[in-house]
Amino acid sequence: MSTILITGSSRGLGLELVQQFAALLPENGLIIAAARNTTPALEEVIAREKGRVAFVALDITDEASVVRSAEVVRGVLGDRKLEILVNCAGVIGETQEKAGSSADLDFTLSVNVTGTHTVTRSYLPLMQGAPVKKVVNISSQYGSMARARANDYAKLPAYKVSKAALNALTVQYALSYEADGFVFMAVHPGWLQTDMGGSGADLTVSQGAKAVLEVIVAADEKSNGTFRNIHVEGSEIYRGEEIPW
Amino acid sequence: MSTILITGSSRGLGLELVQQFAALLPENGLIIAAARNTTPALEEVIAREKGRVAFVALDITDEASVVRSAEVVRGVLGDRKLEILVNCAGVIGETQEKAGSSADLDFTLSVNVTGTHTVTRSYLPLMQGAPVKKVVNISSQYGSMARARANDYAKLPAYKVSKAALNALTVQYALSYEADGFVFMAVHPGWLQTDMGGSGADLTVSQGAKAVLEVIVAADEKSNGTFRNIHVEGSEIYRGEEIPW
Repeated sequence: MSTILITGSSRGLGLELVQQFAALLPENGLIIAAARNTTPALEEVIAREKGRVAFVALDITDEASVVRSAEVVRGVLGDRKLEILVNCAGVIGETQEKAGSSADLDFTLSVNVTGTHTVTRSYLPLMQGAPVKKVVNISSQYGSMARARANDYAKLPAYKVSKAALNALTVQYALSYEADGFVFMAVHPGWLQTDMGGSGADLTVSQGAKAVLEVIVAADEKSNGTFRNIHVEGSEIYRGEEIPW
Repeated sequence: MSTILITGSSRGLGLELVQQFAALLPENGLIIAAARNTTPALEEVIAREKGRVAFVALDITDEASVVRSAEVVRGVLGDRKLEILVNCAGVIGETQEKAGSSADLDFTLSVNVTGTHTVTRSYLPLMQGAPVKKVVNISSQYGSMARARANDYAKLPAYKVSKAALNALTVQYALSYEADGFVFMAVHPGWLQTDMGGSGADLTVSQGAKAVLEVIVAADEKSNGTFRNIHVEGSEIYRGEEIPW
Protein backbone atom coordinates (compact mmCIF):
# COMPACT_ATOMS: atom_id res chain seq x y z
CA MET A 1 0.00 0.00 0.00
CA SER A 2 1.82 3.11 -1.15
CA THR A 3 -0.39 5.40 -3.24
CA ILE A 4 -3.64 7.02 -2.20
CA LEU A 5 -5.86 9.86 -3.34
CA ILE A 6 -8.27 11.56 -0.97
CA THR A 7 -10.91 14.06 -2.12
CA GLY A 8 -12.20 16.80 0.15
CA SER A 9 -8.76 16.95 1.70
CA SER A 10 -8.44 20.68 2.35
CA ARG A 11 -10.04 20.38 5.79
CA GLY A 12 -11.94 18.16 8.20
CA LEU A 13 -11.81 14.40 7.85
CA GLY A 14 -10.09 14.50 4.44
CA LEU A 15 -7.21 16.61 5.72
CA GLU A 16 -6.77 14.43 8.79
CA LEU A 17 -6.76 11.30 6.62
CA VAL A 18 -3.98 12.85 4.53
CA GLN A 19 -1.88 13.35 7.66
CA GLN A 20 -2.55 9.94 9.14
CA PHE A 21 -1.83 8.17 5.85
CA ALA A 22 1.38 10.18 5.53
CA ALA A 23 2.43 8.74 8.88
CA LEU A 24 1.42 5.22 7.86
CA LEU A 25 2.72 4.88 4.31
CA PRO A 26 6.31 3.84 3.54
CA GLU A 27 8.99 6.43 2.76
CA ASN A 28 8.26 6.17 -0.96
CA GLY A 29 4.52 6.48 -0.40
CA LEU A 30 2.53 9.14 -2.26
CA ILE A 31 -0.57 10.82 -0.91
CA ILE A 32 -2.52 12.93 -3.35
CA ALA A 33 -4.62 15.51 -1.57
CA ALA A 34 -7.45 16.56 -3.86
CA ALA A 35 -9.72 19.52 -3.18
CA ARG A 36 -11.15 22.56 -4.94
CA ASN A 37 -8.53 24.76 -3.31
CA THR A 38 -5.66 24.25 -0.99
CA THR A 39 -5.74 25.71 2.52
CA PRO A 40 -3.02 26.90 4.91
CA ALA A 41 -3.52 23.73 6.97
CA LEU A 42 -3.03 21.52 3.92
CA GLU A 43 -0.05 23.61 2.72
CA GLU A 44 1.57 22.99 6.08
CA VAL A 45 1.17 19.23 5.71
CA ILE A 46 2.53 19.34 2.16
CA ALA A 47 5.59 21.32 3.27
CA ARG A 48 6.23 19.02 6.22
CA GLU A 49 5.98 15.85 4.15
CA LYS A 50 8.56 16.98 1.55
CA GLY A 51 7.17 15.56 -1.67
CA ARG A 52 5.16 12.70 -0.21
CA VAL A 53 1.94 14.72 -0.27
CA ALA A 54 0.90 16.37 -3.53
CA PHE A 55 -2.04 18.69 -4.01
CA VAL A 56 -4.30 18.38 -7.03
CA ALA A 57 -7.11 20.81 -7.81
CA LEU A 58 -10.43 19.06 -8.34
CA ASP A 59 -14.04 20.17 -8.09
CA ILE A 60 -16.11 17.01 -7.95
CA THR A 61 -19.17 18.82 -9.33
CA ASP A 62 -17.30 19.82 -12.48
CA GLU A 63 -16.66 16.86 -14.76
CA ALA A 64 -14.04 18.70 -16.85
CA SER A 65 -12.13 19.57 -13.69
CA VAL A 66 -12.21 15.96 -12.53
CA VAL A 67 -11.03 14.62 -15.89
CA ARG A 68 -8.25 17.22 -15.97
CA SER A 69 -7.18 16.32 -12.44
CA ALA A 70 -6.93 12.64 -13.38
CA GLU A 71 -4.49 13.55 -16.17
CA VAL A 72 -2.41 15.57 -13.70
CA VAL A 73 -2.42 12.66 -11.25
CA ARG A 74 -1.41 10.27 -14.03
CA GLY A 75 1.69 12.41 -14.50
CA VAL A 76 2.43 12.57 -10.79
CA LEU A 77 2.13 8.79 -10.46
CA GLY A 78 4.47 8.11 -13.38
CA ASP A 79 4.90 4.33 -13.61
CA ARG A 80 2.93 3.73 -10.45
CA LYS A 81 -0.72 2.91 -10.11
CA LEU A 82 -3.22 4.43 -7.74
CA GLU A 83 -4.06 1.89 -5.06
CA ILE A 84 -6.57 3.65 -2.84
CA LEU A 85 -9.21 6.24 -3.63
CA VAL A 86 -11.09 7.80 -0.74
CA ASN A 87 -14.14 9.78 -1.80
CA CYS A 88 -14.43 12.12 1.13
CA ALA A 89 -15.71 15.30 -0.56
CA GLY A 90 -19.36 16.01 0.07
CA VAL A 91 -21.95 18.42 1.40
CA ILE A 92 -24.38 18.02 4.26
CA GLY A 93 -27.14 20.18 2.79
CA GLU A 94 -29.31 22.58 4.66
CA THR A 95 -31.32 21.44 7.61
CA GLN A 96 -35.07 21.31 7.03
CA GLU A 97 -37.87 20.42 9.33
CA LYS A 98 -39.73 18.14 6.88
CA ALA A 99 -38.97 16.31 3.64
CA GLY A 100 -41.35 18.51 1.65
CA SER A 101 -39.43 21.64 2.66
CA SER A 102 -36.19 20.38 1.20
CA ALA A 103 -35.11 22.64 -1.67
CA ASP A 104 -31.58 21.24 -1.91
CA LEU A 105 -32.18 17.66 -3.01
CA ASP A 106 -30.94 18.08 -6.57
CA PHE A 107 -27.78 19.88 -5.44
CA THR A 108 -27.04 17.39 -2.66
CA LEU A 109 -27.46 14.43 -5.03
CA SER A 110 -25.27 16.17 -7.61
CA VAL A 111 -22.39 16.60 -5.20
CA ASN A 112 -22.57 13.53 -2.98
CA VAL A 113 -23.66 10.99 -5.58
CA THR A 114 -22.90 12.18 -9.11
CA GLY A 115 -19.75 13.96 -7.94
CA THR A 116 -18.44 10.79 -6.31
CA HIS A 117 -19.39 8.84 -9.43
CA THR A 118 -17.55 11.29 -11.69
CA VAL A 119 -14.39 11.02 -9.61
CA THR A 120 -14.57 7.25 -9.38
CA ARG A 121 -15.09 6.61 -13.08
CA SER A 122 -12.35 9.09 -13.99
CA TYR A 123 -9.80 7.54 -11.65
CA LEU A 124 -10.54 3.85 -12.22
CA PRO A 125 -8.17 3.66 -15.21
CA LEU A 126 -5.32 4.85 -12.95
CA MET A 127 -6.03 1.97 -10.57
CA GLN A 128 -6.25 -0.87 -13.09
CA GLY A 129 -3.25 -3.13 -12.61
CA ALA A 130 -2.44 -1.94 -9.09
CA PRO A 131 -1.65 -4.73 -6.58
CA VAL A 132 -4.28 -3.31 -4.21
CA LYS A 133 -7.38 -1.53 -5.47
CA LYS A 134 -9.64 -0.05 -2.83
CA VAL A 135 -12.29 2.63 -3.29
CA VAL A 136 -13.79 3.89 -0.06
CA ASN A 137 -16.82 6.16 -0.15
CA ILE A 138 -17.36 8.22 2.96
CA SER A 139 -21.05 7.74 3.61
CA SER A 140 -23.16 8.17 6.74
CA GLN A 141 -25.37 5.93 8.81
CA TYR A 142 -28.00 8.62 8.19
CA GLY A 143 -28.22 6.97 4.78
CA SER A 144 -29.54 3.77 6.35
CA MET A 145 -33.25 3.30 5.62
CA ALA A 146 -33.41 0.58 8.25
CA ARG A 147 -32.29 3.14 10.84
CA ALA A 148 -34.34 6.04 9.46
CA ARG A 149 -36.83 6.14 12.32
CA ALA A 150 -34.09 6.13 14.94
CA ASN A 151 -32.33 8.92 13.03
CA ASP A 152 -35.44 11.03 12.49
CA TYR A 153 -34.30 13.55 15.13
CA ALA A 154 -31.74 14.85 12.61
CA LYS A 155 -33.67 16.89 10.05
CA LEU A 156 -31.49 16.32 7.00
CA PRO A 157 -33.74 14.67 4.42
CA ALA A 158 -31.69 15.51 1.32
CA TYR A 159 -28.43 14.46 2.96
CA LYS A 160 -29.93 11.16 4.08
CA VAL A 161 -31.34 10.40 0.62
CA SER A 162 -27.98 11.27 -0.95
CA LYS A 163 -26.11 8.90 1.35
CA ALA A 164 -28.57 6.07 0.64
CA ALA A 165 -27.96 6.72 -3.06
CA LEU A 166 -24.19 6.78 -2.48
CA ASN A 167 -24.47 3.39 -0.79
CA ALA A 168 -26.42 2.04 -3.76
CA LEU A 169 -23.77 3.45 -6.10
CA THR A 170 -21.08 1.73 -4.04
CA VAL A 171 -22.90 -1.58 -4.44
CA GLN A 172 -23.18 -1.13 -8.21
CA TYR A 173 -19.44 -0.46 -8.50
CA ALA A 174 -18.67 -3.35 -6.17
CA LEU A 175 -20.49 -5.78 -8.43
CA SER A 176 -19.14 -4.28 -11.66
CA TYR A 177 -15.46 -4.49 -10.71
CA GLU A 178 -15.30 -7.41 -8.32
CA ALA A 179 -13.81 -9.69 -10.99
CA ASP A 180 -11.04 -7.11 -11.57
CA GLY A 181 -9.96 -7.36 -7.93
CA PHE A 182 -11.40 -4.05 -6.76
CA VAL A 183 -12.84 -3.54 -3.31
CA PHE A 184 -15.53 -0.88 -3.02
CA MET A 185 -17.02 0.03 0.31
CA ALA A 186 -19.11 2.66 2.02
CA VAL A 187 -17.97 3.74 5.47
CA HIS A 188 -19.72 5.66 8.21
CA PRO A 189 -16.92 7.78 9.67
CA GLY A 190 -18.76 8.66 12.86
CA TRP A 191 -20.10 12.00 13.96
CA LEU A 192 -16.97 14.11 14.00
CA GLN A 193 -15.98 17.51 15.37
CA THR A 194 -15.44 19.04 11.93
CA ASP A 195 -16.93 22.22 10.44
CA MET A 196 -19.63 19.91 9.10
CA GLY A 197 -20.22 17.98 12.31
CA GLY A 198 -19.97 20.83 14.79
CA SER A 199 -18.20 20.99 18.14
CA GLY A 200 -20.81 18.87 19.95
CA ALA A 201 -19.99 15.78 17.90
CA ASP A 202 -19.07 12.38 19.36
CA LEU A 203 -15.47 12.11 18.26
CA THR A 204 -12.49 14.27 17.44
CA VAL A 205 -11.47 14.43 13.80
CA SER A 206 -8.35 12.53 14.73
CA GLN A 207 -10.32 9.69 16.34
CA GLY A 208 -12.61 9.46 13.33
CA ALA A 209 -9.77 9.48 10.81
CA LYS A 210 -7.88 6.82 12.77
CA ALA A 211 -10.94 4.57 12.76
CA VAL A 212 -11.60 5.16 9.04
CA LEU A 213 -7.96 4.44 8.26
CA GLU A 214 -8.26 1.14 10.11
CA VAL A 215 -11.30 0.21 8.04
CA ILE A 216 -9.46 1.06 4.83
CA VAL A 217 -6.34 -0.91 5.78
CA ALA A 218 -8.39 -3.95 6.83
CA ALA A 219 -10.63 -3.91 3.73
CA ASP A 220 -10.35 -7.09 1.70
CA GLU A 221 -12.44 -8.94 -0.86
CA LYS A 222 -14.99 -9.83 1.83
CA SER A 223 -15.54 -6.10 2.37
CA ASN A 224 -16.56 -5.52 -1.23
CA GLY A 225 -20.01 -3.96 -1.48
CA THR A 226 -20.45 -3.49 2.26
CA PHE A 227 -21.43 -0.48 4.37
CA ARG A 228 -19.39 -0.43 7.53
CA ASN A 229 -19.40 1.51 10.75
CA ILE A 230 -16.08 2.50 12.29
CA HIS A 231 -14.91 0.75 15.41
CA VAL A 232 -13.95 2.79 18.46
CA GLU A 233 -12.71 0.90 21.48
CA GLY A 234 -15.35 0.80 24.21
CA SER A 235 -17.97 2.69 22.19
CA GLU A 236 -21.59 1.53 22.12
CA ILE A 237 -22.20 3.55 18.95
CA TYR A 238 -19.15 2.70 16.88
CA ARG A 239 -18.95 -1.07 16.96
CA GLY A 240 -17.45 -1.74 13.55
CA GLU A 241 -20.60 -3.50 12.47
CA GLU A 242 -22.04 -3.77 8.99
CA ILE A 243 -24.79 -1.14 8.85
CA PRO A 244 -28.11 -2.35 7.44
CA TRP A 245 -29.22 -0.60 4.24
CA MET B 1 -61.59 7.33 -2.03
CA SER B 2 -62.63 9.62 -4.86
CA THR B 3 -59.76 11.80 -6.10
CA ILE B 4 -56.45 10.65 -7.49
CA LEU B 5 -53.61 12.10 -9.53
CA ILE B 6 -51.27 9.88 -11.54
CA THR B 7 -48.09 11.16 -13.19
CA GLY B 8 -46.64 9.53 -16.28
CA SER B 9 -50.17 8.73 -17.35
CA SER B 10 -49.91 9.21 -21.12
CA ARG B 11 -48.87 5.57 -21.63
CA GLY B 12 -47.74 2.35 -20.00
CA LEU B 13 -48.50 1.68 -16.36
CA GLY B 14 -49.68 5.24 -15.67
CA LEU B 15 -52.30 5.13 -18.44
CA GLU B 16 -53.53 1.71 -17.35
CA LEU B 17 -53.81 2.93 -13.75
CA VAL B 18 -55.97 5.83 -14.96
CA GLN B 19 -58.32 3.38 -16.66
CA GLN B 20 -58.50 0.94 -13.79
CA PHE B 21 -59.07 3.69 -11.22
CA ALA B 22 -61.80 5.13 -13.46
CA ALA B 23 -63.54 1.76 -13.26
CA LEU B 24 -63.07 1.58 -9.48
CA LEU B 25 -63.94 5.08 -8.28
CA PRO B 26 -67.51 6.18 -7.58
CA GLU B 27 -69.52 8.10 -10.16
CA ASN B 28 -68.36 11.44 -8.70
CA GLY B 29 -64.73 10.30 -8.64
CA LEU B 30 -62.07 12.41 -10.32
CA ILE B 31 -58.91 11.03 -11.90
CA ILE B 32 -56.29 13.56 -12.89
CA ALA B 33 -54.02 12.18 -15.57
CA ALA B 34 -50.76 14.12 -15.50
CA ALA B 35 -48.12 13.87 -18.20
CA ARG B 36 -45.92 16.08 -20.34
CA ASN B 37 -48.29 15.63 -23.27
CA THR B 38 -51.51 13.85 -23.87
CA THR B 39 -51.64 10.89 -26.29
CA PRO B 40 -54.40 9.46 -28.49
CA ALA B 41 -54.77 6.57 -26.04
CA LEU B 42 -55.24 8.93 -23.11
CA GLU B 43 -57.59 11.17 -25.12
CA GLU B 44 -59.74 8.14 -25.77
CA VAL B 45 -59.98 7.38 -22.05
CA ILE B 46 -60.80 11.01 -21.29
CA ALA B 47 -63.58 11.06 -23.90
CA ARG B 48 -65.01 7.76 -22.68
CA GLU B 49 -65.07 8.82 -19.04
CA LYS B 50 -67.02 12.05 -19.70
CA GLY B 51 -65.48 14.46 -17.19
CA ARG B 52 -64.26 11.92 -14.66
CA VAL B 53 -60.73 11.94 -16.11
CA ALA B 54 -58.97 15.29 -16.55
CA PHE B 55 -55.61 15.83 -18.21
CA VAL B 56 -53.06 18.17 -16.69
CA ALA B 57 -49.78 19.05 -18.38
CA LEU B 58 -46.80 18.49 -16.12
CA ASP B 59 -43.11 17.91 -16.77
CA ILE B 60 -41.69 16.54 -13.52
CA THR B 61 -38.19 17.77 -14.42
CA ASP B 62 -39.41 21.37 -14.68
CA GLU B 63 -40.26 22.84 -11.29
CA ALA B 64 -42.19 25.77 -12.76
CA SER B 65 -44.33 23.37 -14.79
CA VAL B 66 -45.06 21.29 -11.71
CA VAL B 67 -46.00 24.32 -9.61
CA ARG B 68 -48.23 25.60 -12.44
CA SER B 69 -49.92 22.22 -12.77
CA ALA B 70 -50.70 22.16 -9.04
CA GLU B 71 -52.53 25.47 -9.42
CA VAL B 72 -54.52 24.07 -12.32
CA VAL B 73 -55.38 20.97 -10.29
CA ARG B 74 -56.43 23.12 -7.35
CA GLY B 75 -58.98 24.72 -9.66
CA VAL B 76 -60.17 21.38 -11.02
CA LEU B 77 -60.61 20.00 -7.50
CA GLY B 78 -62.63 22.99 -6.31
CA ASP B 79 -63.71 22.28 -2.73
CA ARG B 80 -62.34 18.75 -2.84
CA LYS B 81 -58.98 17.54 -1.66
CA LEU B 82 -56.56 15.27 -3.46
CA GLU B 83 -56.57 11.88 -1.74
CA ILE B 84 -54.11 9.80 -3.71
CA LEU B 85 -50.96 10.78 -5.56
CA VAL B 86 -49.24 8.12 -7.66
CA ASN B 87 -45.76 9.11 -8.80
CA CYS B 88 -45.46 6.92 -11.85
CA ALA B 89 -43.39 9.16 -14.18
CA GLY B 90 -39.79 8.10 -14.54
CA VAL B 91 -37.02 7.01 -16.86
CA ILE B 92 -35.12 3.77 -17.00
CA GLY B 93 -31.83 5.23 -18.23
CA GLU B 94 -29.53 3.72 -20.76
CA THR B 95 -28.17 0.25 -20.29
CA GLN B 96 -24.48 0.11 -19.49
CA GLU B 97 -22.21 -2.81 -18.94
CA LYS B 98 -20.51 -1.48 -15.81
CA ALA B 99 -21.13 1.22 -13.22
CA GLY B 100 -18.15 3.27 -14.40
CA SER B 101 -19.60 3.52 -17.92
CA SER B 102 -22.77 5.14 -16.72
CA ALA B 103 -23.02 8.66 -18.15
CA ASP B 104 -26.68 9.15 -17.23
CA LEU B 105 -26.60 9.11 -13.43
CA ASP B 106 -27.25 12.81 -12.95
CA PHE B 107 -30.14 12.81 -15.42
CA THR B 108 -31.69 9.66 -13.99
CA LEU B 109 -31.51 11.01 -10.44
CA SER B 110 -32.98 14.32 -11.60
CA VAL B 111 -36.02 12.68 -13.11
CA ASN B 112 -36.71 9.72 -10.85
CA VAL B 113 -35.76 11.28 -7.53
CA THR B 114 -35.79 15.08 -7.70
CA GLY B 115 -38.72 15.04 -10.15
CA THR B 116 -40.78 12.88 -7.82
CA HIS B 117 -39.80 15.11 -4.92
CA THR B 118 -40.84 18.26 -6.82
CA VAL B 119 -44.24 16.78 -7.62
CA THR B 120 -44.79 15.51 -4.08
CA ARG B 121 -43.90 18.73 -2.31
CA SER B 122 -45.99 20.77 -4.77
CA TYR B 123 -49.08 18.60 -4.34
CA LEU B 124 -48.95 18.01 -0.58
CA PRO B 125 -50.89 21.22 0.17
CA LEU B 126 -53.75 19.92 -2.01
CA MET B 127 -53.89 16.75 0.10
CA GLN B 128 -53.86 18.33 3.57
CA GLY B 129 -57.28 17.81 5.14
CA ALA B 130 -58.31 14.93 2.85
CA PRO B 131 -59.92 11.97 4.65
CA VAL B 132 -57.44 9.63 2.95
CA LYS B 133 -53.90 10.76 2.08
CA LYS B 134 -51.79 8.22 0.19
CA VAL B 135 -48.66 8.91 -1.84
CA VAL B 136 -47.41 5.93 -3.80
CA ASN B 137 -44.03 6.08 -5.49
CA ILE B 138 -43.54 3.61 -8.31
CA SER B 139 -40.13 2.19 -7.54
CA SER B 140 -38.42 -1.04 -8.60
CA GLN B 141 -36.97 -4.01 -6.80
CA TYR B 142 -33.82 -3.16 -8.81
CA GLY B 143 -33.44 -0.43 -6.20
CA SER B 144 -32.96 -3.03 -3.47
CA MET B 145 -29.34 -3.15 -2.29
CA ALA B 146 -30.03 -6.40 -0.48
CA ARG B 147 -31.00 -7.95 -3.83
CA ALA B 148 -28.29 -6.24 -5.89
CA ARG B 149 -26.24 -9.35 -6.50
CA ALA B 150 -29.27 -11.34 -7.64
CA ASN B 151 -30.22 -8.45 -9.95
CA ASP B 152 -26.74 -7.94 -11.36
CA TYR B 153 -27.73 -9.53 -14.68
CA ALA B 154 -29.65 -6.33 -15.51
CA LYS B 155 -27.06 -3.70 -16.40
CA LEU B 156 -28.87 -0.58 -15.26
CA PRO B 157 -26.63 0.99 -12.62
CA ALA B 158 -28.05 4.52 -12.77
CA TYR B 159 -31.63 3.29 -12.71
CA LYS B 160 -30.92 1.07 -9.71
CA VAL B 161 -29.22 3.87 -7.78
CA SER B 162 -32.12 6.20 -8.59
CA LYS B 163 -34.69 3.73 -7.28
CA ALA B 164 -32.73 3.17 -4.07
CA ALA B 165 -32.70 6.95 -3.65
CA LEU B 166 -36.43 7.12 -4.40
CA ASN B 167 -37.00 4.54 -1.66
CA ALA B 168 -34.94 6.63 0.76
CA LEU B 169 -36.95 9.70 -0.23
CA THR B 170 -40.17 7.78 0.41
CA VAL B 171 -38.94 6.92 3.90
CA GLN B 172 -38.08 10.56 4.64
CA TYR B 173 -41.55 11.70 3.59
CA ALA B 174 -43.16 8.85 5.53
CA LEU B 175 -41.52 9.98 8.75
CA SER B 176 -42.12 13.69 8.11
CA TYR B 177 -45.87 13.41 7.52
CA GLU B 178 -46.89 10.38 9.56
CA ALA B 179 -48.39 12.56 12.30
CA ASP B 180 -50.54 14.32 9.67
CA GLY B 181 -52.12 11.01 8.67
CA PHE B 182 -50.28 10.54 5.39
CA VAL B 183 -49.24 7.15 4.07
CA PHE B 184 -46.18 7.10 1.83
CA MET B 185 -45.02 3.94 0.19
CA ALA B 186 -42.73 2.67 -2.54
CA VAL B 187 -44.11 -0.09 -4.75
CA HIS B 188 -42.43 -2.48 -7.14
CA PRO B 189 -44.98 -2.76 -9.96
CA GLY B 190 -43.44 -5.87 -11.50
CA TRP B 191 -41.68 -6.26 -14.79
CA LEU B 192 -44.37 -5.15 -17.23
CA GLN B 193 -44.87 -5.34 -20.97
CA THR B 194 -44.67 -1.58 -21.47
CA ASP B 195 -42.44 0.41 -23.83
CA MET B 196 -40.04 0.56 -20.88
CA GLY B 197 -40.26 -3.11 -19.94
CA GLY B 198 -40.33 -4.64 -23.41
CA SER B 199 -42.48 -7.43 -24.78
CA GLY B 200 -40.55 -10.19 -22.98
CA ALA B 201 -41.63 -8.94 -19.56
CA ASP B 202 -43.36 -11.06 -16.90
CA LEU B 203 -46.77 -9.45 -16.80
CA THR B 204 -49.16 -7.54 -19.01
CA VAL B 205 -49.63 -3.86 -18.20
CA SER B 206 -53.15 -4.69 -17.11
CA GLN B 207 -51.95 -7.35 -14.64
CA GLY B 208 -49.35 -4.98 -13.21
CA ALA B 209 -51.79 -2.08 -12.86
CA LYS B 210 -54.37 -4.30 -11.20
CA ALA B 211 -51.81 -5.47 -8.65
CA VAL B 212 -50.55 -1.93 -8.01
CA LEU B 213 -54.12 -0.71 -7.59
CA GLU B 214 -54.68 -3.41 -4.99
CA VAL B 215 -51.60 -2.26 -3.07
CA ILE B 216 -52.81 1.34 -3.17
CA VAL B 217 -56.32 0.46 -2.01
CA ALA B 218 -55.03 -1.73 0.82
CA ALA B 219 -52.43 0.79 2.01
CA ASP B 220 -52.99 1.90 5.59
CA GLU B 221 -50.96 3.44 8.39
CA LYS B 222 -48.99 0.20 8.78
CA SER B 223 -47.86 0.58 5.16
CA ASN B 224 -46.27 3.97 5.82
CA GLY B 225 -42.59 4.01 4.90
CA THR B 226 -42.57 0.52 3.39
CA PHE B 227 -41.36 -0.83 0.04
CA ARG B 228 -43.77 -3.44 -1.21
CA ASN B 229 -43.85 -5.95 -4.01
CA ILE B 230 -47.10 -6.52 -5.86
CA HIS B 231 -49.00 -9.74 -5.30
CA VAL B 232 -49.96 -11.89 -8.27
CA GLU B 233 -51.92 -15.05 -7.55
CA GLY B 234 -49.74 -18.13 -7.93
CA SER B 235 -46.56 -16.17 -8.75
CA GLU B 236 -43.24 -17.09 -7.14
CA ILE B 237 -41.86 -13.65 -8.02
CA TYR B 238 -44.71 -11.36 -6.99
CA ARG B 239 -45.59 -12.45 -3.50
CA GLY B 240 -46.72 -9.12 -2.05
CA GLU B 241 -43.83 -9.15 0.37
CA GLU B 242 -42.00 -6.22 1.86
CA ILE B 243 -38.83 -5.86 -0.21
CA PRO B 244 -35.61 -5.46 1.81
CA TRP B 245 -33.79 -2.17 1.26
